[in-house]
Amino acid sequence: MINVAIMGHGVVGSGVAEILIRSKEHIAKGVKEDINVKYILDLRSFDELDYKDKFTTDFNTILNDDEVKIVVEAMGGINPAYDFVKKCLSSGKSVVTSNKELVAEKGAELIKIANEKNVNFLFEASVGGGIPILRPMVQCLAANKITEVKGILNGTTNYILNKMIMDNMDFDTALKLAQDNGYAEKNPAADIEGHDACRKICILASLAFGKHIYPKQVETVGITDITLADIDYANAFNYVIKLIGKAKLLENGKVSINVRPTLVSRDYLLSDVNGVFNAVSVMGDSVDEVIFYGRGAGKLPTASAVVADIMDCAKHLETRKYLSWEDTDESIVEKEDEETKLYVRLTAKDFSLLEESFIKTFGNDIFAIKNKEKGELAFLTQKDFESKLTHKINTLKADKIKILHTL
Amino acid sequence: MINVAIMGHGVVGSGVAEILIRSKEHIAKGVKEDINVKYILDLRSFDELDYKDKFTTDFNTILNDDEVKIVVEAMGGINPAYDFVKKCLSSGKSVVTSNKELVAEKGAELIKIANEKNVNFLFEASVGGGIPILRPMVQCLAANKITEVKGILNGTTNYILNKMIMDNMDFDTALKLAQDNGYAEKNPAADIEGHDACRKICILASLAFGKHIYPKQVETVGITDITLADIDYANAFNYVIKLIGKAKLLENGKVSINVRPTLVSRDYLLSDVNGVFNAVSVMGDSVDEVIFYGRGAGKLPTASAVVADIMDCAKHLETRKYLSWEDTDESIVEKEDEETKLYVRLTAKDFSLLEESFIKTFGNDIFAIKNKEKGELAFLTQKDFESKLTHKINTLKADKIKILHTL
Repeated sequence: MINVAIMGHGVVGSGVAEILIRSKEHIAKGVKEDINVKYILDLRSFDELDYKDKFTTDFNTILNDDEVKIVVEAMGGINPAYDFVKKCLSSGKSVVTSNKELVAEKGAELIKIANEKNVNFLFEASVGGGIPILRPMVQCLAANKITEVKGILNGTTNYILNKMIMDNMDFDTALKLAQDNGYAEKNPAADIEGHDACRKICILASLAFGKHIYPKQVETVGITDITLADIDYANAFNYVIKLIGKAKLLENGKVSINVRPTLVSRDYLLSDVNGVFNAVSVMGDSVDEVIFYGRGAGKLPTASAVVADIMDCAKHLETRKYLSWEDTDESIVEKEDEETKLYVRLTAKDFSLLEESFIKTFGNDIFAIKNKEKGELAFLTQKDFESKLTHKINTLKADKIKILHTL
Repeated sequence: MINVAIMGHGVVGSGVAEILIRSKEHIAKGVKEDINVKYILDLRSFDELDYKDKFTTDFNTILNDDEVKIVVEAMGGINPAYDFVKKCLSSGKSVVTSNKELVAEKGAELIKIANEKNVNFLFEASVGGGIPILRPMVQCLAANKITEVKGILNGTTNYILNKMIMDNMDFDTALKLAQDNGYAEKNPAADIEGHDACRKICILASLAFGKHIYPKQVETVGITDITLADIDYANAFNYVIKLIGKAKLLENGKVSINVRPTLVSRDYLLSDVNGVFNAVSVMGDSVDEVIFYGRGAGKLPTASAVVADIMDCAKHLETRKYLSWEDTDESIVEKEDEETKLYVRLTAKDFSLLEESFIKTFGNDIFAIKNKEKGELAFLTQKDFESKLTHKINTLKADKIKILHTL
């Protein structure tokens, strides 16, 4: 029998407890040993639960119990999760977490401690909820040099954008609906400003390229500036707008990484990822493109990924170094001057001057949508280096310029 | 250093050799040991190759060399692959294969020998080419009870159907084009008659549900009877036709399994899987639906999955039982009377009699496409049990009845 402690009895923590209890037999069959939940750490009491006796409010009860071999961290946030996880690993307990903030900010350090102590630090659930991504990327694609990883990493923003695209709902109404349905939090900043997606692309990039990339190094733009007009213009060009996190290995070994609202061609599979679903695309030098799709959040999907990590831990209590990366002092992040098409939306009081400068700079061949009344002109550039395109765009006689990238 | 032998230097075998040589350093870093190709078994000679000295025509050279710890079987077919693989496993060598026919027909037996001899028998490349599917299904979704697995498992037929759907090309022309592009073999029977997809759904179902399901137990229908008219009717109902392999765990513990051309709603992600790409959907009781997408065939994608298996083997030379299932004497396959919609296409000399019987049986509310000139009527039933629907359809006054399932 292997004893487990769960820290945090919120959405994910309670889901983990539920699966470990409900699927006890199925899990024991897989692990060839029983998994027993010995403690649950939470400041609240849950007197209505069958397993109310397992609750403790004292972290030291878990830390000092040598019978506890695996600790699940499902508290979220950096404090006190970081301190607790460090202490658990240092005292020889394996840790499984779904906490993307913790992994994105402190991953390299925690992996290092785990390796030194010959225990596991596993975090499959931190990216893509229940979708298997991290392990397949490292294990199954092991023969590949990964060149790019990108995707729809945040279900809340995908839900909001989807409502704007499908139901012509404005941003505020869609956000309100997401909140009413429990897909967005009261304070939605972490989702709509792109921080959640940023943490996930950091974890994916760190794992794919072997060096820790920190959230503060990533150019992150949220979706708060996306309007129905952008959605409509994109649609006219046969694109949809998605919040895309993307990390690309450059030829010089550096990594170009960003999170931003991006126009995705309707011909590309990611454009069909709707609602709260997530999808991650991995490019390998042999396998070409592989996409993983599923529910990126939610109690049971996420908890099932945590439980799979617990099972892996239980079968291999000693450290398994495959899910790891190193810390680095040198900056490996570099903005690429990529070859791309840009979406451009221009507003000017003097529309004919704008129109004239557009034709002068971009010629007559590019399809542009013109709204004379609003003094607005929107178009998609041809493919060229971003620096060149931006230079050309900046010569246009416009009062307001909005630029979005394409995929 | 770990010595490997490759049996067969065709598409996959040569790809494996290429990756092992080209990515030697990357692989050694992952495995923490060098992987050396000691022999390649092929009856042909390849004098133009750098590594021509590695070739042998004698299987016993490989079998009797105790330095060879891992053997790659990339010959295809049952004979002599089955005999060779059995001998390798029995003599304590691990085997990695991409041979779906071998795994689908002999998997349980070969897994049993591998377990007894404490070596590995790995076959990730046998389903979905380079797409990680088997390992993620077993490892990452370990906390889930898998209830259904289905998907587009054959790139050739998907390419042909896609050409019919997108370019209005008839079946024969599309097949010819697939052959010209190297996507279909000269004798295309294994693909277009569904046998290849059948082997793959057998492997997926055996792994998901733990008991060997043999190809002969699977109701298999190919795409040779699909015409442009079917494609057009499906389109009018907002569906596309795909060759779908599907295995579902029934409440009584039996498995309903089949391969057949199926109408897939345009609202469902699998409808957007185009060209030679594959996609596999796995339903778990906690994770809900997860989809894996990528290139289901091709030299380097498939070879990269074989090499990942070699690397896994090299890191764990002793047996790892997670990719396994048991043989069974009892039949676990049972046809489900599922609740579904059916696509029905009827032809009658007496069209008004047909029309009358249709309205009498199905009422006036169902949208039907009527082609009086051709004496043809096509419609999509409402959702009901298949037996009930079939019974109703058989009362219609038609000379010819064509029924396709929907997803």
